[in-house]
This record gives sequence, structure tokens and C-alpha cells, in this order.
Amino acid sequence: MTHRVVVVGGGFGGLAAIRRLRGAPVEVTLIDRRNFHLFQPLLYQVATGGLTAGEIASPLRGMLKRRRDVRVMLGEVSSIDLAAREVIIDPVGDRDAEPVPYDTLIVAAGAGHAYFGHDEWEPLAPGLKSLEDAIEIRRRILTAFEAAEADDDPARRAAWLTFVIVGAGPTGVELAGQIGEIARDTLRRDFRSIDPGSARILLLEGADRVLTAFDPRLSARAERALAELGATVVVGSLVSGIDPGGVEARHEDGTTERIPARTVIWAAGVQASGLARLLAEAAGAEVDRAGRVDVAADLTLPGHPEVLALGDMVRVSDGRGGVLPLPGVAPAAMQQGRYAARLLRRRLAGRPPPPPFHYTDKGNLATIGRLRAVGEVKGMRLSGFPAWLAWLGIHLFYLTGLQNRALVLVRWTVAFITHGRGARLITSEGRPPTGPAGSPPAGGSPEGS
Amino acid sequence: MTHRVVVVGGGFGGLAAIRRLRGAPVEVTLIDRRNFHLFQPLLYQVATGGLTAGEIASPLRGMLKRRRDVRVMLGEVSSIDLAAREVIIDPVGDRDAEPVPYDTLIVAAGAGHAYFGHDEWEPLAPGLKSLEDAIEIRRRILTAFEAAEADDDPARRAAWLTFVIVGAGPTGVELAGQIGEIARDTLRRDFRSIDPGSARILLLEGADRVLTAFDPRLSARAERALAELGATVVVGSLVSGIDPGGVEARHEDGTTERIPARTVIWAAGVQASGLARLLAEAAGAEVDRAGRVDVAADLTLPGHPEVLALGDMVRVSDGRGGVLPLPGVAPAAMQQGRYAARLLRRRLAGRPPPPPFHYTDKGNLATIGRLRAVGEVKGMRLSGFPAWLAWLGIHLFYLTGLQNRALVLVRWTVAFITHGRGARLITSEGRPPTGPAGSPPAGGSPEGS
Repeated sequence: MTHRVVVVGGGFGGLAAIRRLRGAPVEVTLIDRRNFHLFQPLLYQVATGGLTAGEIASPLRGMLKRRRDVRVMLGEVSSIDLAAREVIIDPVGDRDAEPVPYDTLIVAAGAGHAYFGHDEWEPLAPGLKSLEDAIEIRRRILTAFEAAEADDDPARRAAWLTFVIVGAGPTGVELAGQIGEIARDTLRRDFRSIDPGSARILLLEGADRVLTAFDPRLSARAERALAELGATVVVGSLVSGIDPGGVEARHEDGTTERIPARTVIWAAGVQASGLARLLAEAAGAEVDRAGRVDVAADLTLPGHPEVLALGDMVRVSDGRGGVLPLPGVAPAAMQQGRYAARLLRRRLAGRPPPPPFHYTDKGNLATIGRLRAVGEVKGMRLSGFPAWLAWLGIHLFYLTGLQNRALVLVRWTVAFITHGRGARLITSEGRPPTGPAGSPPAGGSPEGS
Repeated sequence: MTHRVVVVGGGFGGLAAIRRLRGAPVEVTLIDRRNFHLFQPLLYQVATGGLTAGEIASPLRGMLKRRRDVRVMLGEVSSIDLAAREVIIDPVGDRDAEPVPYDTLIVAAGAGHAYFGHDEWEPLAPGLKSLEDAIEIRRRILTAFEAAEADDDPARRAAWLTFVIVGAGPTGVELAGQIGEIARDTLRRDFRSIDPGSARILLLEGADRVLTAFDPRLSARAERALAELGATVVVGSLVSGIDPGGVEARHEDGTTERIPARTVIWAAGVQASGLARLLAEAAGAEVDRAGRVDVAADLTLPGHPEVLALGDMVRVSDGRGGVLPLPGVAPAAMQQGRYAARLLRRRLAGRPPPPPFHYTDKGNLATIGRLRAVGEVKGMRLSGFPAWLAWLGIHLFYLTGLQNRALVLVRWTVAFITHGRGARLITSEGRPPTGPAGSPPAGGSPEGS
């Protein structure tokens, strides 16, 4: 019988593994709770009306239709039976839970938001992981300007025009920059009672600078670029409370400040997919504070060489008792996915295993807005126009599908010329579907970026 | 003081009126519950994954930003005070209901679905009027194929692969054709357990042919084209029951048939916006069975020359005691909108009123699928490739915004070459937002097409 590989998660990691398994003597089953691959690095542009949902998502079946060795199953993983070598899924439709047997299991289910024990903040300050999140954030940002236009009470209007972003990693910085552009450029002539350019955009960060993963000089440049767009960076500041009317921030000096704000966006923490805990429990291990499961230097689950896990949901051993420092970005997940496929191919060919996983950092880029970006590419620090151009090229190149590239190129070109954002629609999207028969189930989220 | 015009509804009718008022000595306030204009004639393509929501919607503020004489208010009309000449709206945000005074009122709020006294069918068989409707229908169609793939029980699988469309007007015909193309072309290589081409697509129609507004010869051609795409037309058939497992149809011969089907789409009836009833009650008049209010031959509300109403929500007098036969399409609404503006401009200039409203029928087109369409343009019957080309050109020409035209052209070109549909995403969209502060209110829907 052909070797059965089950891959959980059609994100960057899972798809990279499947691609690298092309031609191998295996049958692959890909399980995801969504029917599309999401290009998460551009999600913030959907959240700010620059792109639409369909332009950064590709149907998984379409991507894999030429791979007759791959079967796609839509469903949520409810448990994993390591002894029986079965993944149990709740499929879409009326079917009961169904076991999917494997010879090798690759779990790449990504991560969601972490609210550090304050899950009650989630509805007040949504994070940005899914298309539904992006459309909800877009709705809140645009509705805030509408409500400010409709309100002539100065205090209420000011609260509607205050946008607080919690966490100044790449997502937080990019969101703050985009909201700045919306307020100053896109909406400049849209309203009659308010000046959207007077919006206050606050980027709260607990550390002492933005983009802590970057060189400090780049952080400084990013802060200047943000200031030019009207976004204020507040470092050394932790959120101690969120309610519908605003945020309470605790500053470095011990003082507490209440910031009236009707729009709060969470970009501060990441929590591994619940499948990490399932794997850990099944293997008799534990997860770390971010919910991640430990894997060996070859990405296998300790004691279970037939199970590999990768991406945002794992901590990879460096083979010397420590943990490999890995950023939660798409290239890291893709490299791990390809490594998993290589390891399996070697095993099946009876060859010795590859050397432990090693991450090749090709660089890191973040845009702040039109013509503004910072980053490091192959050890070179970049900022301003060259960084922006590099960012543009890399994202267009890696975006899935020729059609999506053409569509995004049209949108970016028009936006560049007109300063417009055609997709600034207020629609409701709600949470990913759950519940009644016929709706796709929720669970095993796609790999993070 | 400048003459104040309030326009309710940013659909085809309302926008046509506002465009034709450019340069007139008026101040215009446009009230809509959504922040975008929707190009409804292409909504069925969003429902079938050919286009994305953002490509057929344009932000109203962006469309009108150069018109400093126009103010846009997002909100729902809760009542109309004809004596005080005020429209009362519930604005977005925390504000209480707010009166908006007018000197002339133009109401163009369109229509929704009619379930002929069976409102309980709505969740079982959604109609297609809003972007949220389209995304919900897309979710149901795509989920049905997924559920069929996951289910090996033949009867359940067959029910998942049966699609019933109720009503064979243009929307029903276009939807049936598109689902046929999805099943036969788009998804052909996507699944491993089912053959999507075996899907059963039933188009139920109470009359004796499809597209009753067209020439009978064109109806016959449309039925043949539908048959080629695997869609079966059942004429003389009324729906007498809908439940989650299927539809009960009562045929012409008096027999009743139960059709097991998990996906049912409603394209059968239209109900005027609730604002028609508000107007009728305020004027001491009544609405007809479709909820429409009667207006005079010059589109004014009887007894209230300062109030005009138009589009799908009105019955227009022919001036001889009868009703003007008007189709519920975009050109009819646009002609009425332009007429309303012309009437007002003449009034303000002290000139005699224009002759009664007269509808110029420029034609009617419906696509059934790739290279297939039927229609009449300027009295000529068209079908097949010429009709399809005419349809394509007209829709691209009238689509709002250069950017949307470019994006749709990219999608259509790629779809034509690859038979693919890039936007076949299963996402939840839910109903248009209502409820908590900060969410846009529901109400006065945009003009129908």
C-alpha cells in the first residue's frame, strides 16, 4: 500500500511540504477547516480597504487540482490518536466524526491571537488572522469615520476619531501606517463635517521601540515614517484595560492613562493552534506559555518519528538543549514544510536523515505606507523607496496565483495614482462559520505568516 | 437659503438623480444604510465565485467626493414627516434619531425579496439582493460540493448535489447557468470521490416558460442553453414547501413532488422597500400586494408635489387611470432618477413641468454562461455569441469606476481562458450589520436593478 501522508493546515508550511512531495511514493490528504489558502502577509491591506478578500485567497482545490496524489478534506481536527495513527476530523455536512489514518502526519496549523489571560478583550479589540477578522476591522475603521461625521459632540467625535493599535510588530506598524494614509489621503475629501486628517492614531508597544525584530536604526526610521503619517508611537506602554469606550494604558513611569477610543485593534500576541496542545497531550508532553508544542531538531514529535509539526505552533529544539529562534513569518514556515518533505522522502528511499532543520533568514520587510518601508534583505539594511520597491516585488512574486497578482497589481497601481482605496466597504462578515449542518466547521487554522 | 434636496437610496435611481442635479441651485443630502453603491446586475457572479464583492461595489463617498454640493449620511430612515418636511434617520454611531429637513424629497430605496407569505422560507432559501446574500449563497453552493465529497451515502450525496432555484427570471436563469458551469467546468478536477458534473440543477418556474419578459423564441433558446449546461427547467411548477432537506413542488397537473435538495435559492419575488409603506401611510394612501406606493405620472406622491419616489418601490401612473409597465431593472431606475432631477430643475427655474415620465426600453439581456446569452437590443433579438458579447460590453461599460472595470476584465479574461473561478471562497458574511453601537444600521436599501 502506498505510504499515506496526512497534512493538517493548508497555510504556507503545509503547502510547501505538499509541493515538495510531488512525485514521492505517497498519497497525501490535506485537511483544512477553510477551503482556501490565505496570503496572510497582505491581510492588513484587506483590513484597510486596499485589497479585497478574494485577492489574497486561493481555493486549495484549485491550487492542487493537477496533483492527483493529493486529496483535500474540509473539516476540523477534533483529536489525534497517535497509537492508532489516526486523525479524527469533523467533516463538513452531516457526517459524524471520521478517522483519517496516516503513516506520516505533518501538522502545520498555525496560530491565533493571544490576549494574555484577557479573552474578554477579544470582541473589543479584534486581532488580524482571518479574512473575517480583516473585514471586521475594516468595518470598524470605516464606521468610526462615519459615526464621527454624524456626531457633533466634540468628545464623542474625538473618541470615534481615535484609533489605538496594541503591539508594534510588523502587523501593528503596517496597520498604523495604513490608517494614517486612509485618514490623510484616501478620505481627505469624503466628509463634510469632520477632517479625517485630524484622526489620532496611537501605536502602543510594551518594549522600548517598534519592530523589535529589526535593527534599532530601522525602528527609528519606521517611527519617523509613522509620525509623518500622523501615527504616534507610545513605547514602554502596556494595556491594562479595554472597554467599549477606550483603553487604559500603563506607562513605563508607572502612571496610568485612559485613552477614549472607539476603535482598538490587537496586534500584540500570538497563541499556537489548539492542535499543538492536542499533540502535546497525546505525546505526554506540555505546551509553553504561547501554547506551542516542542519538537526535535528534525521537527518530529519526541517519541513519534512519524509525526512532524512545524510553523507558529511549535518550538524547535536546536539540538543542544535550547530552542531555535524562529520568527513567525511565512518563509520560516515554508522552509520547515520543505524540510519535512525532504526528511520523509529520504526515509522512504532508505537514505540517512538530513541534518537538523536550519533557518535561512533571507530578510524582513515592513511597509509603513506609500513609498515608505524598512527592512533587511540578505544582511543589507533598507529603508524608504528601495525598501518599498523590494517589498512590492517580493509580495507580488510570492502571492498565490497569476490572476491574484494581476488583480493586486491593478489595485496597487490605481491606488498609487489616485491615493484611493476602492475596497473601503462596510460589510459584516462575522466569525468563521460554525454550527448548523451545511456550514463549514471551525478548527485547525491555516499556517501563520 | 439654498433649496435642500434629500435623496434616500444610493442605488441606480438615486445616483442618477444626483448626477443630473450637478450645477443646479440645490444642496443635496444622500441617505443610505450602506456606504457603497452596488452594481446589482453582476451580483449573481459574486454568488457563484466569478467576481469578488469589492469588484461590484463602489464607496458612495468616493463616487461623490468631487461634488461639494452633496453630503452623504449613513443611516436608516425610521420615518418621514410629510407635514414638517423632515426625514428621520437613525444615524450610525451613538446619536439618537435625527431629523433631516428637505424642500424636495426623492425616495429611491428599491426592493427586497418576497416570499409570498412564507417568510419562514427565507433562511432555507436565501434570495440575492445584497453582497451578504451573494456571499451566503456562494458559501452554500461550495459547501454542498464539499459535503458531497465527504459523504459516501448515495442518497445524502445526491441531496447535496441537487441545487434548486425558484423562479426563472433573469436572476434565476443566470444563477442556474453559472451553477451548471461551476459543476461541469470549474470544479471538474477538484474532487476525488464525486463527479461534480453529476450535479442536478433544477430551475422551477410557475409560468409556462423561462424569462417571461422576453420573446418566447428567446425563452426557448435560453432553455436549450441551460440544458447544455446540465440545468433542467421545470415550468408550471410552484413551490409549496421548503425544509432543510428539500423542496416540495406542485406541478401543473396537480401532482406534488418532493425534491431532496440541500441548496435552495430564491429568485421568485420582489417586495418593495418598507419606505414605500411609510410614504403611503404618511400620504393616506395604500400599497399594492408587492408593497409598492402609487405615484403620479410625474413620479410625485399624490398631494405632495415636493416628494418624488421611483424605482422598484413604486407603481407609476400612466396618466390615464392605469399603471405604466416598468421592468425592475437598472435602466428603468436610472431613467426615473434623471426624470426626477429634470422635473426639479425646471421647477426651480420657474419653467413648465416636463411631459409625464416615459420609459425607453433599450433592451434586455441575460447570460446563461460562457458564450451563451439571449436578449433584445433596440428591437433586435440576439442570442448566442453576439448576445454574449453585447452583454459583456454593456456590463463593463456601466460598471462603476475604472478600477472595477479593469479588475472585472482581468477576472473575466482569466476565467475565459482557464474556465476557473478564483473567488470560490467559503466565508461567512452573515446578514447586514445591525445592533450594537458602532455598527452601521439597516434600512432603506439601495435601488434595485
